[in-house]
Amino acid sequence: MLKRYLLTPGPTAVPPEVMLRMSQPLIHHRTPEFETLFAEVQHGLQWLFQTTQEVLMLAASGTGAMEAAVANLCSAGDTVIVVNGGKFGERWTKISQAFGLKPVEIKVEWGQAVQPAAVAAALQAHPHTKAVLVQASETSTTALHPVKALAALTRDTDTLLVVDGITSIGATETPMDEWGLDVVITGSQKALMLPPGLAFIALSEKAWKQVESATLPRYYFDLRRERKEQQKHTTAYTPAISLINGLSAVLHLMQDEGLEHLFARHALLAAATRAAAQALALTLLAQTSPSPAATGVFLPEGINGSQFLKYMRDRMGVDIAGGQDHLKGKIVRISHIGYAGPFDVITAISTIEMALRRFGHPLELGRGLRAAEEVLMDGWPAIG
Amino acid sequence: MLKRYLLTPGPTAVPPEVMLRMSQPLIHHRTPEFETLFAEVQHGLQWLFQTTQEVLMLAASGTGAMEAAVANLCSAGDTVIVVNGGKFGERWTKISQAFGLKPVEIKVEWGQAVQPAAVAAALQAHPHTKAVLVQASETSTTALHPVKALAALTRDTDTLLVVDGITSIGATETPMDEWGLDVVITGSQKALMLPPGLAFIALSEKAWKQVESATLPRYYFDLRRERKEQQKHTTAYTPAISLINGLSAVLHLMQDEGLEHLFARHALLAAATRAAAQALALTLLAQTSPSPAATGVFLPEGINGSQFLKYMRDRMGVDIAGGQDHLKGKIVRISHIGYAGPFDVITAISTIEMALRRFGHPLELGRGLRAAEEVLMDGWPAIG
Repeated sequence: MLKRYLLTPGPTAVPPEVMLRMSQPLIHHRTPEFETLFAEVQHGLQWLFQTTQEVLMLAASGTGAMEAAVANLCSAGDTVIVVNGGKFGERWTKISQAFGLKPVEIKVEWGQAVQPAAVAAALQAHPHTKAVLVQASETSTTALHPVKALAALTRDTDTLLVVDGITSIGATETPMDEWGLDVVITGSQKALMLPPGLAFIALSEKAWKQVESATLPRYYFDLRRERKEQQKHTTAYTPAISLINGLSAVLHLMQDEGLEHLFARHALLAAATRAAAQALALTLLAQTSPSPAATGVFLPEGINGSQFLKYMRDRMGVDIAGGQDHLKGKIVRISHIGYAGPFDVITAISTIEMALRRFGHPLELGRGLRAAEEVLMDGWPAIG
Repeated sequence: MLKRYLLTPGPTAVPPEVMLRMSQPLIHHRTPEFETLFAEVQHGLQWLFQTTQEVLMLAASGTGAMEAAVANLCSAGDTVIVVNGGKFGERWTKISQAFGLKPVEIKVEWGQAVQPAAVAAALQAHPHTKAVLVQASETSTTALHPVKALAALTRDTDTLLVVDGITSIGATETPMDEWGLDVVITGSQKALMLPPGLAFIALSEKAWKQVESATLPRYYFDLRRERKEQQKHTTAYTPAISLINGLSAVLHLMQDEGLEHLFARHALLAAATRAAAQALALTLLAQTSPSPAATGVFLPEGINGSQFLKYMRDRMGVDIAGGQDHLKGKIVRISHIGYAGPFDVITAISTIEMALRRFGHPLELGRGLRAAEEVLMDGWPAIG
């Protein structure tokens, strides 16, 4: 009997109460009942995005919302600045290329955050840039980009700041209106603790103005049509009904916890994991600007990362993510996002300690756990 | 958000696939479909009990099956020998008294196993003893009684050996036929990984003969009637249908794992927990004959056990059992039974380490975890 633990930065574990909610009989989506549900989650999403703008729901993965942003804001030949510091930064480039844009890439070493000065310089070199495309939290490298500082560069210009908040919304402070973010995107399978299948996108007034003049082709992802329908609490095309039902349960859980506590919890779990990694003399991938959504850690030299992950998954029941592209086989990524608590950190570190020992790495068992516990105890409420 | 962990020795956690099975639409119990299901689980229960006898299912908790044993085997005024080494041993006495029997108690210090010589002496002093009533695993003290040795005393006599196997069946070797146990009882909410509500009882040929001559009153628990109905793959009274449906899923899980591995897993988890307790200088309650179903550990002097458990449950989300009667507030009991794996031990020990520290007990964090990991690693399969 192998008890399974899903500790990957998406999909993330779904709380049982949410699973139960999604198991309710389907309701039809062209009914007042669905409209009531939809209006309720729309309201909750505005709270979560910290915006007065509409947050549109799409039956798609997060990448669909990234494409929707590009297709609705740009015209062929437009220049966009892409912060490419990982797999998802690279995805902005690929989407831009697929739509005939001219992406100007700011390459950032994997694990590092972009320097705002580099974006400022690119903006200066390309004054007619339509948009800056960036991740708030680059899931592939577990680094956090300084989105607030980037917004300060674009806020009073014609350039839009388009933020992939897929592993930041609900995990770390990304207040759309306060920071002046023009587009914010997220997906259901991260901090929203749902199965994959829903994407979310919100646009600022400035961004909505651009939608009118953009000429890229769009049909399924035409946000003008979606906005019109969603203002009536329905969707242009068939919505992912059970996921939206689950979303209602999730938003209640999140509202019960509160944004401040939600962010503090993610920060605590990430800090405990980093402390454990350091106690085990494992090198962190994101050293200066680590994301609270996940922690990337280099494996010791000589350990085959694919075999290591396979052992943990198949033999120990613990699913932790590996690296992508040139980091494949070299790192592991431990998720803290969504339905995660202190004992998920403990389980992840314990798995890694035992698996490292099993793979021949000399290591004092319990050392990482002790460090994690020291940090976690700061976050436990006091007695009484 | 508080993620909950149920680490009590009953009820125990239910695997998600079993929960899903129990969520299937109810079928009626007077149908061929139910009879097919019932026949299948009857077969599985015989495998689990290691018996060729019928294993009867009762809609009751384990105590109901204990009463059924007494009511079906005894007559008013009968002498029974009760091994009373804990809360559940005491229950045998109380049931016997309620039915007008003459219980001869062998008092055993909580945490200790009964000495077979003490039972032999009692049998010699009371040669007409109808039955010896004992727990295989005394859940309240986490001690294992030497049931095999007791069976050697009763096997070739007219006295029956009645075994409460509520936390031994499916957790540790208790082979009914091979050891010559006359009655074996268990409940659904222990190693069977189901919600409470089902009890199981199997009788040897020798015990069935006694049922005929016993004169105690019985109706709901009349095993003659149940046996007759259950031979036709149905029950005398309304069965707990969804639990029996879940039982089918559970037995498949157990059969996939195999008895040998099942017992080895429980033994490993218990050994790791004991090693952790010792590393933390906590005194074990059951020192000489510990049960693999649960581990009882004394709290350090000065810690209020009720507050300690409440803190772990309400603030840390981890449900661990306390002590009963004179051990209330003095011990904690960590379950290993049923749907439990190595990371449940890690979670339990981590909770206890952090809670002890929080309650002011000086302690090196991680020390118990290291000891647990050292033991657990012996049980993990090798690489490849």
